[in-house]
Amino acid sequence: MRPAARSFVLGELVDLLGGELEGDANLRITQVAPLESAGPEDISYFAAEAYRRDLDATHAGAVVLHPSNARPGLNCICTPNPLLYFVRLMALFHPEPEVAAGVHPMAWVHPQASVATSAEVGAFASVEQGARIDSRARIGSGCRIGHHAEIGEDSALHANVIVYPHCIVGKRAVLNAGCVIGSDGFGGVLDRGRWVKMPHLGRVVLGDDVEVGANTTIDRGAMGDTILGNGVKLDNLIQIAHNVRIGDNTSVAACAGIAGSARIGANCVIGGSADISGHLHLADGVQISPSTMVGRSIEVPGRYTGIFPWSEHRTWLRIAAALRRLGDPGVADRKRPRRERSRESAQHVQEERDDDGHQ
Amino acid sequence: MRPAARSFVLGELVDLLGGELEGDANLRITQVAPLESAGPEDISYFAAEAYRRDLDATHAGAVVLHPSNARPGLNCICTPNPLLYFVRLMALFHPEPEVAAGVHPMAWVHPQASVATSAEVGAFASVEQGARIDSRARIGSGCRIGHHAEIGEDSALHANVIVYPHCIVGKRAVLNAGCVIGSDGFGGVLDRGRWVKMPHLGRVVLGDDVEVGANTTIDRGAMGDTILGNGVKLDNLIQIAHNVRIGDNTSVAACAGIAGSARIGANCVIGGSADISGHLHLADGVQISPSTMVGRSIEVPGRYTGIFPWSEHRTWLRIAAALRRLGDPGVADRKRPRRERSRESAQHVQEERDDDGHQ
Amino acid sequence: MRPAARSFVLGELVDLLGGELEGDANLRITQVAPLESAGPEDISYFAAEAYRRDLDATHAGAVVLHPSNARPGLNCICTPNPLLYFVRLMALFHPEPEVAAGVHPMAWVHPQASVATSAEVGAFASVEQGARIDSRARIGSGCRIGHHAEIGEDSALHANVIVYPHCIVGKRAVLNAGCVIGSDGFGGVLDRGRWVKMPHLGRVVLGDDVEVGANTTIDRGAMGDTILGNGVKLDNLIQIAHNVRIGDNTSVAACAGIAGSARIGANCVIGGSADISGHLHLADGVQISPSTMVGRSIEVPGRYTGIFPWSEHRTWLRIAAALRRLGDPGVADRKRPRRERSRESAQHVQEERDDDGHQ
Repeated sequence: MRPAARSFVLGELVDLLGGELEGDANLRITQVAPLESAGPEDISYFAAEAYRRDLDATHAGAVVLHPSNARPGLNCICTPNPLLYFVRLMALFHPEPEVAAGVHPMAWVHPQASVATSAEVGAFASVEQGARIDSRARIGSGCRIGHHAEIGEDSALHANVIVYPHCIVGKRAVLNAGCVIGSDGFGGVLDRGRWVKMPHLGRVVLGDDVEVGANTTIDRGAMGDTILGNGVKLDNLIQIAHNVRIGDNTSVAACAGIAGSARIGANCVIGGSADISGHLHLADGVQISPSTMVGRSIEVPGRYTGIFPWSEHRTWLRIAAALRRLGDPGVADRKRPRRERSRESAQHVQEERDDDGHQ
Repeated sequence: MRPAARSFVLGELVDLLGGELEGDANLRITQVAPLESAGPEDISYFAAEAYRRDLDATHAGAVVLHPSNARPGLNCICTPNPLLYFVRLMALFHPEPEVAAGVHPMAWVHPQASVATSAEVGAFASVEQGARIDSRARIGSGCRIGHHAEIGEDSALHANVIVYPHCIVGKRAVLNAGCVIGSDGFGGVLDRGRWVKMPHLGRVVLGDDVEVGANTTIDRGAMGDTILGNGVKLDNLIQIAHNVRIGDNTSVAACAGIAGSARIGANCVIGGSADISGHLHLADGVQISPSTMVGRSIEVPGRYTGIFPWSEHRTWLRIAAALRRLGDPGVADRKRPRRERSRESAQHVQEERDDDGHQ
Repeated sequence: MRPAARSFVLGELVDLLGGELEGDANLRITQVAPLESAGPEDISYFAAEAYRRDLDATHAGAVVLHPSNARPGLNCICTPNPLLYFVRLMALFHPEPEVAAGVHPMAWVHPQASVATSAEVGAFASVEQGARIDSRARIGSGCRIGHHAEIGEDSALHANVIVYPHCIVGKRAVLNAGCVIGSDGFGGVLDRGRWVKMPHLGRVVLGDDVEVGANTTIDRGAMGDTILGNGVKLDNLIQIAHNVRIGDNTSVAACAGIAGSARIGANCVIGGSADISGHLHLADGVQISPSTMVGRSIEVPGRYTGIFPWSEHRTWLRIAAALRRLGDPGVADRKRPRRERSRESAQHVQEERDDDGHQ
């Protein structure tokens, strides 16, 4: 782990962040660390029973924990939400580096683009005509800011982020490397068997405090815009299709896909690899489990799931065979020997073979 | 939405695109818009019953629709396929910008590469030895055109697209930002527990009128090529493995994966997040539903599906438990209390936990 | 296929690679090829019964095969593992091109970065302060090497690869285009309904001989590191979350996702589009089938599967309806007409509709 930017005594930490100190206010802390590996100058936290054994054995100089877990002989900062406290404490020890204001000599800024003097533009980044980069924004190396796009103040774009023309990124955004904001949506109309591409005239509009993961893609609207509310958090490799709307503070885990014109409410949690069909609506506060495919609107908050339970491969062969029989309309078939039907089903669900020996 | 490049009176539109005008031929239209938000200078369309209410309430200056939906008092352009008509009309109001012929002063073109004088090469793009960029092609900023790669005429590569050496892109392609054409395939052979990498000597060859979505990846062939036919349309974040072949006008939605050496027919439709195993064949006209895993060849056109139905989480726990019992070979087990077996199955299918409290 | 770098007579090949030659030691071979298309100057291989017919009909000058498949009248190189032999032979005919040592005039290397004189840095690549590029490493055009990152000797980074600050890439790595090493993990804590971002202070550490596919993403650790062992092979579009650990020689196919803090053993094989939940453990030698979601630790080597079997769409509608009934706790409901319940279930699992006619 990288060295901390500065050190604190425990007394300073509670002065800055609150909490109840039980222990030595003058103990100097130089780093944050997990319970397991923390040493006498490190501070750690305890927030889940699964780590009780690590707490008992820790050599940490101090631990952030719930008051009910404080113990004599251990320097404790007591607080009702230890993880939230610790996240803030991490930011004290490891503040974001200062913005290095200015345009790199090997960047390209169009003469009719506007870059705030406090903003940073990295090597080989390009900022096209009419684009606007607000105060203290960081445009990482190799980023592409299309014409008339806007990047809000204090936003950080990591390397090789692409913002298409006319798209808008709000304040304090964090866009991880390689994400794409505003690509053409996937829309075509068949004309005698051939696809005619639908022009995409809308934009992507991101609210404030939005986070986008590495290599995630967000398509622009066909007509109208694709809109993400304030505080929306997207993980890596997510697909957001054209004209989707996502409400404030909704979080989406990696590899999920949201199809065209879906409207996702606020404060939803979408699990990794979940898929949401197009043209539907999820109410505020809906939670979708990972790897679940949702094909219809959900108007009642709560948790929804659809995962095929995994098992040993042989067991699965039997389950798959039984499942296929459930779809079997004929009675006659049921009279065939069980083994025969089972084998057939198994063949039907044959999985990816590896390449060994194939040409 | 961005302003239209020009305006038309209704009479001009039917002169250009056909259709039957019922209404004021001299009405000037300045923009395209959805029924819901269209105003008196906008034109919209009606093509699905779900939007009947929007049609009834619209303030649009004119609407493109099927003759059976025309109504007095509304300026209508009647046509058998309103959506197709409207897509063409969108392109009239919003034509593609002209190619800005020439090489950006901060691009890199190898002296032995060939770039047509009518082509455009953006800032920080690189074009390597022996590569060929044909007439009116656009190479976006930050694109990488490998040695001996070829880009056909009128193709548009958005920012940061990567075309590996020797790969071929046909005419009128649209490659969205960050897509990768020609990466090494995933092939190795085990040698005493360690993987020996298979060299990849083939190419990717894209036909004409191919569209590739943002951050989609297409691997080159091991021996022989990976080949996509004319008019193939790929959405974002799709994986096409080595030596795959895809027939003309097949369309693949986002997040789908097609494994090595699969041969997909023409005019197929592959849904989002669907997975196609390697070394199999799909006939022309096969449709695969979203989130479906296909593990064997399909020789009969039609629609195929395999989606676990989602439900409230508690209901799913019961379904998953019942499903696991289907795979249970022993009778004895059936005599255990139902509640016990149910709980066990539920644990077995425990889902992704969030990070709260974990170290 | 690109021309071979050089040619060999069969006698030279067995001298270099071993194996038993049955046939003409002086026959000159100029290229490798599949059985089907090989001509009299080409060498091919036979390693799977599925290609028996191609073997019988081949015009190849010579074939690498198992001794049991040798036949009179065909020039054969006999070896116990023909595919492994052939992969080595491919590398003889098509060796990796020499590293073109030096920094491209349009690259950017920070004065306090260290680049070995035998290393290559491509056009528009950037190497930041304190970064280290070891002997014979290739940094492709448009790559971003963050400050204090390290790239081991003989590693090859294709175009537009991003390595975040402080991350470490071992020796002989192959990183395909657009992959991201070291992006922020997805971690936040809710504070009155809003997400507070967790700082990510750890690194990504890749062992030696690691391969990463195009547009794959690997997140840095929150505290502690994300660690991939020696010989790990990752395909395209894979997500590896923060603090994951993967053991030596494990292979992961395209579109798979591994959630935070999962510990994957050595010599595992993870199929395409499989998902592994966070905070669990897979033992050495576990094999996960494609499209399978694993939600709990697996301590016994073997193969595990959970795939919904696909079928004709109508059949699937029946299966889905039956499955939903399995989760039905009430008896009363069972008395409702079968058709009614079936229809309801089918609606419930409605799939992605295409965009035709939707606004």
